[in-house]
This record gives sequence, C-alpha cells and structure tokens, in this order.
Amino acid sequence: MDTHLHDLMEFLRIPSISAQSSHAKEMTRCAQWLVTKLKVAGLDASLHNTGGFPVVIGKSHNLQASQPTVLIYGHYDVQPPEPFEEWLSPPFEPEIREGRIYARGATDNKGQILAHILGVQETIQREGIAGLPCNVIFLIEGEEEIGSPSLHRFLEVHRSELKPDIIVISDTGMVKHGVPTLTYALRGVAALEFVVHGPSHDLHSGVYGGAVVNPLTVAARLVASLHDSSWRVAIPGFYDAVRDLEKWECDIKSIISDADIIEQTDAPALDGEAGYNVIERIGARPTAEVNGMGGGYQGEGTKTVLPKQAFVKLTFRLVPNQDPTQILELAETHLRAQCPKGVRLEIHQGHSGPAYFFDPQSTYGKAAQIALKKAFHQEPILCREGGSIPILQSLKSVLEADSLLLALASPDCRAHSPNENFPLENFQMGIRLNQILLKEIANLRFRGDIPPEDIAQVSHIC
Amino acid sequence: MDTHLHDLMEFLRIPSISAQSSHAKEMTRCAQWLVTKLKVAGLDASLHNTGGFPVVIGKSHNLQASQPTVLIYGHYDVQPPEPFEEWLSPPFEPEIREGRIYARGATDNKGQILAHILGVQETIQREGIAGLPCNVIFLIEGEEEIGSPSLHRFLEVHRSELKPDIIVISDTGMVKHGVPTLTYALRGVAALEFVVHGPSHDLHSGVYGGAVVNPLTVAARLVASLHDSSWRVAIPGFYDAVRDLEKWECDIKSIISDADIIEQTDAPALDGEAGYNVIERIGARPTAEVNGMGGGYQGEGTKTVLPKQAFVKLTFRLVPNQDPTQILELAETHLRAQCPKGVRLEIHQGHSGPAYFFDPQSTYGKAAQIALKKAFHQEPILCREGGSIPILQSLKSVLEADSLLLALASPDCRAHSPNENFPLENFQMGIRLNQILLKEIANLRFRGDIPPEDIAQVSHIC
Repeated sequence: MDTHLHDLMEFLRIPSISAQSSHAKEMTRCAQWLVTKLKVAGLDASLHNTGGFPVVIGKSHNLQASQPTVLIYGHYDVQPPEPFEEWLSPPFEPEIREGRIYARGATDNKGQILAHILGVQETIQREGIAGLPCNVIFLIEGEEEIGSPSLHRFLEVHRSELKPDIIVISDTGMVKHGVPTLTYALRGVAALEFVVHGPSHDLHSGVYGGAVVNPLTVAARLVASLHDSSWRVAIPGFYDAVRDLEKWECDIKSIISDADIIEQTDAPALDGEAGYNVIERIGARPTAEVNGMGGGYQGEGTKTVLPKQAFVKLTFRLVPNQDPTQILELAETHLRAQCPKGVRLEIHQGHSGPAYFFDPQSTYGKAAQIALKKAFHQEPILCREGGSIPILQSLKSVLEADSLLLALASPDCRAHSPNENFPLENFQMGIRLNQILLKEIANLRFRGDIPPEDIAQVSHIC
Repeated sequence: MDTHLHDLMEFLRIPSISAQSSHAKEMTRCAQWLVTKLKVAGLDASLHNTGGFPVVIGKSHNLQASQPTVLIYGHYDVQPPEPFEEWLSPPFEPEIREGRIYARGATDNKGQILAHILGVQETIQREGIAGLPCNVIFLIEGEEEIGSPSLHRFLEVHRSELKPDIIVISDTGMVKHGVPTLTYALRGVAALEFVVHGPSHDLHSGVYGGAVVNPLTVAARLVASLHDSSWRVAIPGFYDAVRDLEKWECDIKSIISDADIIEQTDAPALDGEAGYNVIERIGARPTAEVNGMGGGYQGEGTKTVLPKQAFVKLTFRLVPNQDPTQILELAETHLRAQCPKGVRLEIHQGHSGPAYFFDPQSTYGKAAQIALKKAFHQEPILCREGGSIPILQSLKSVLEADSLLLALASPDCRAHSPNENFPLENFQMGIRLNQILLKEIANLRFRGDIPPEDIAQVSHIC
C-alpha cells in the first residue's frame, strides 16, 4: 500500500487544471506521468495529442478475442482549486489526515482512476499479463472538467482500436460513506437562456411606470409560469415521454432521508413535485431550474428604474425517453405563448444531452452488482443520480457500449470544492473492486448468466 | 451665458453619488462648491452637517417682513451612473451635443437648481439685493436620491429660520419639450426589498434540483404574484384608498399620446392596468414595479447552480390617500402569504413618502401659471406626474407651506438613465422663469388676487 500511496501523491502533486491556460505544461506533464505509470503497471501506453489536451491510452498486450474487452474511462484534469484560503492544506500538496488524503483531484478523478490502474497492476504483478481475465483498455482524458470538447472526435478516429464490450467508470458518488453504489441512470440536461427586451434604455420607474411594461416583471412571470402550484413543470407536453418507474425501482426503502439532504444543503425545508419523495425528485423526475437571472439595479440601496431588459438562464434536467431537442422546443413555445405584449422575447437554445439509463439487471449490470457485493461485503445500492455525464452519450453512440458507473467517491468528498478528499479505504476498496469486477465480467462470458443467489437484492432507488 | 455654462459644468463634474458610500468625499466637495456659488450669487450661504450628507442653505440678507418669503428647494446628489458602457460621453465629464449638455445630474437636479440660483444672481447683479422682489431661501440637500433620510429632522431643527410663504421646486418634467408645465400632483413611493434564502451555498442543480426549492424561482413567483393578468396590482387592499379623478381632471384632451411615450422609451408597445389610458396609468394610478432582481450565475455561458439566494428590489408608486406605511404592510403580508415552504423570506421595508397634491387654482398656483405663461409665451399645462418627491410631505408638515412644481426637465432628459441631458434652452428658460416667478409672487401680496384673464385655461391632465 505504501508504494500505491506514493503513486497517488505523485499524481496529485501535478496541478493539472484544464480550465486555466497557465497550467498547459502541467497538463502534458500529467499525461506523461500517466503513460509511465501505465507502462509500470504492465500495459502498453501512449499519449495522443488532440486539438486540446492529450488523451492517454493504456492497453493490455495482444488483446484476446476469447476475452471480453473492458474500457475503463477516467480523467486526469482537475477543477480549479480556488478559493485557496479555504484549504486547510495546499491543494497540490497532498496531506493525509484521519484516514483521508486531501488534495485537488483526490476523488475527482485521480484517486478513482488510479485505483483501477493499480488493480490491474496488482493482477499482472501477481499472475502475469495472462492472469488478466479481460482485455483492458484505459481511456484517460484531460478535458472532462471543461466539457470534453475533444473526446467525441477522438473516439470517432480511434473507434476500432477502442471498441469494448463494456465500459467502466468510477466518477460518481456513493449514496453514503462505505455503501457500495451502482448508478444506473443519470439525468440529461437541456439549456435555454432568454432575454426580455422592453424600452431602449432604463426608464424612471415613476415617470413611466404603469404605462410601459417592465421586462423584469415579465421575466419573473415567465419563470413563474414554468411550474404549477404543486411544483409540477407546467410546460405543455413536458411529461409526455416520462415513464413511470419500473416496479423494482418503486420498492423504495430509502437510505437517503430528507434529513440527509437538509444536512448536506442547509435548506430550510425540502419541497418539490407533489406525489414524489425526495429520492424520486432528484433521480427520476425531470425539472426546470433557474440557474441565473438578473435585471435592473443590483447595487446597494435603491434605484428607481424600470429596466430595459432582463435575462434568465434555465436548465432542464431530463429523464429517460425525454428528447432534449423536443423539450427545448416545447419550452420555447410555452414561453412565447406566456409572454405578454409590450416586450420582445429573445430565446437562445443552449447545449443539451439526453438522460442515461443502463439496466442494472442486464448481464453486465449483474456482474457489477456481484463485484460490488464481494468487494464491500455489503449489498450494493442501485441508484439514479440527478446530475449528468454528457460524455456517456458519446461513449454509447461511438463505441456502442454501455457504461457501468461504480462509485468510489464519498458524499462528503468535496469534489469541486476546497478540501477535496478521498478516504484511503475507498482507494484500497477501488483497487480490490477492479480485480473482482474484471473476473466477474470474464465469468459472464463463460456462464452466459449468473446464479440467482449471487445477485444482490434490488430494493433501493436513490 | 458662458459663465453660467462654466458654472454648470463645474457642478456636473463632481460625482456626488449619494447611494455609493465610496463617494462620500465628493458629496462634501459638492456641498462646498454650492456654498461658494451661492455667495458669489450674492446670498448668505452656509453648509450644515446632518447625520448624513450636508444641507446647503443660501439666503438673501436681512429678510423683509413686507415681502413674501420663497423657499427654493433642490438637491445636489445624483443617481448612480451605471451602466457606464452605455454612456456616449463619461457621466461626469459634461459634453455639449446638439444644444444639450450630457452628464449625470444635468437635469436631475443640478441643471434645474442652478438655473434658479443664476436667476437670483442675475437679479442681484442687475438691481442689487434690494431688487429681489421676495425674500429668497435656497435649501439644497444631498440625499434626495436616497430618500432624504436627514431632511425631515433638519427642517424641524431649522423650522423658524426656513419658514416660507411658498416653496418652489424645479425637479419635475415638462409634458413635451418646450411646453410650460405646472405639476399639481405627484405619486408617492414606498420601497421594499426582499431576499429569498434557500440552501447555505450554491448547489449543483443536477444533484439537488427537484428536491431543494430554488430561491430564484420563488423570487420570480413572488414578483409574478404582484399583478393579475390585466396588470392590476394583486395585493389585497392595495386600491382601497384610491379615489377617482375629479371632474376637472377627467376632462382630458391629452397632448400626450401612446405614440409620444413609445417615441420617448422605444418600448415595443404599451400596456398597463386595464381600463385606464396611458396618462392615467402614469399620473393617477398606483403601481408595483421591480427595479432590480438577481440571483445565481449571471456570467457568460452556463453554470448549473441552484442558487442559495435571490433578491428583489421593489417600489410602489402611490396616489393621493394611499398611506405608504400601510401599503408596505399590505405588501409584506401578501408576500409572506404567497411564499411557499422550503425557503426563508427576509423583507426590508425601505423609504417611503405619500403622494402630493396641490390645488393649481389656489392663489400661488395661479401666480405660477402666470409666470410660466410669461416666461414661455405659451399656455401652461396642468399635470399629474408619475414620479415622487417624498420630501414634499416634510416640507408641507414642518414648514406648513405648499410647493409649486415648475418643470424645467424635458421628457427625453433621461434622468436616472445613461446619457442624462439638459437642453441649454431649458437652462436659460429656467434662469428667466425664476426672475418672473419671484415678481409674480411678490405681486400677489399686493393684489391679494389675480385678474381672471391672466389665468391659464385648465383643461389638461397628464
């Protein structure tokens, strides 16, 4: 474990911040470090330049047609560490405190992807390359935190060399510390921004108020029109494609309570779409959220203007079967229908990606459940997550393979925040999980199925 | 005129922004500039410290008991100039273009109050202090744009030295460029700001959206709840004290059409409270306006946050008989009743002042009409204005005198907006009006009344 920790610390010391151009050299250094590490682990490794930051590929030698091919995706770039003053130890000087390693990238995603590399390394060191039960391909990019602009094209170019049977990603969160979690669904996202234009300049709200329609009032009315009084999205057709949960998903014995969410967020109370609990509202129901809005005077004190315009930034989180393009069209139609006279409405449809769903009762899903149970000695939780991982769609469409989302992150890992950390036990568990998982996936090929007693009880949605 | 313009430019170069605490020194510098200017004009002048920004007093020497005393009120503070990028010339570097001087405060109120000072200066320079037909007291404050928090107390302390027969104020607008206007009614104002608090920090809108109530959505819903679909204010009790117009006010042969307002504002179309025309909506009906609102991510592109809070700045414009304190209470009660669970609503009631009404057919009203007719060689228009001068109420209650509101501002002066400007001809007209008005007021004392043929036709409300 000492040498593994040494590896992790080296990896974490490189400030591979993709969003800050001043760190471009460190990005390349980090990619080169990974190439070396993958070679030490016993794999073929190569660095591939893209239009952006390099992609690193690691492959087991001489892929065997008789074995399933597992592509393990991760990323070596990290979020900016600011604000520095809130870190108890410097973000790129990893420090171990109370069983956790603190550094930017500790969880997201260096600790998690390194656990998989070290899992493969342990297998090869113990049993030789022939001991690897699957063909393994590591695909580690450097642009995940900036929206993976080069990845789709890279996948298209390298489709034939990368084609896997199944993809493994550890970049999601456990529902609770120490609880093995298989995320089988993520919400999609569709962005829309609108601007309400009124007069050509800010007006005196006394001199003109009452006769000239206030764009900020209209913007607020349009936002208010997005939901009914029971917090159901009021855009006609919004729910048309939304399916009810499957029966096995509805049997919820939630291990996440309202109190957990309140503790995480400090919200005064929770509320949301009537008829659903907090877990369904996050994982299984689509939403319309205002991410930003502004207009008029936002400074200190009072300024009695009738503002010339107001803007609203919206994103919709989507569930399986909702078509992001159609949702944006429905939203635009709704907003235009709701807009009163006296203003001009400008709408910009933004980026979007569909929801992701992978049947956890599929063959590979069952293998993942078994591996999680064996690695953690505990029933895994099957989980729908509320966030989005847009590259899943590229992986699916270009490589034609599904992704198993196996969380190694704790809910309190502070990814993207100061004092990001990774419990050392999760690191160790990840190394073990990798070895068990590859065996289980290989077993599937031979057995074609799995005995029922090995299948974890599916009883939770979260 | 050259020296008058020089004075005006000096006055306008001082960024006396009362709302921004960083400009406190400039406020004092501006008050000192006025003291010097009033002394040069031939008056006694003094600067009076208050709890806030100084009040400047200028007085003709040895007030004569035989003469009426006219108090001329104005203010040297200006609105914040933001947004800077929309100014064609910098707000505090006055520039003359096509017969207008452009600067923050050009119209509101530096240009207008300076015209009165220069009117008195011309009389004294021409005829000596004995040539002034009235006792003149200038009262120029530095807190008008922030609700005059120190003025009422100042008036109480200095009541005996300030007691006038009539008050003159040029801080209103002409109905059309070049049309003499006597404003006999102003709307009151009542300000309220609220903050909707949700989680303790901005959340990931995917991870928590749907389960945690979005404060920005709530803020929008609360704003939307202020009006019904016909733009009538939906706060229960809001219209209880609102009276219908008097018969003479209803005889509207409007010289202001929808087209005029559209030309002034460039609004795509006009709309407002159902059942009233544009003139009534501005002058005779109360309103609820959002002056500013903000929350979440307001930068470029998308950031998928569920913001921790959102704020809204509101002002209500009030008509005669509405009690501002009661209106704020009704608004607070309404907002609290409309606020859904899941957030905490923080409400700050701000400054307020009732509407003002002064009978234009009173003796002093008639003198004002005559002076306007003589100065402009045109019938004056009698007008209700939509703006507010809250201190009128203090002036009335403490000094027990009415105010004549004689407009020197053009409708397209852009007060409170970028590119505020003042036509130089209005500046000159103001200097002239001051001299004629003081004579007409003095004449009243001797005549006791005014021959009917001198009274302008009262036929318009605007």
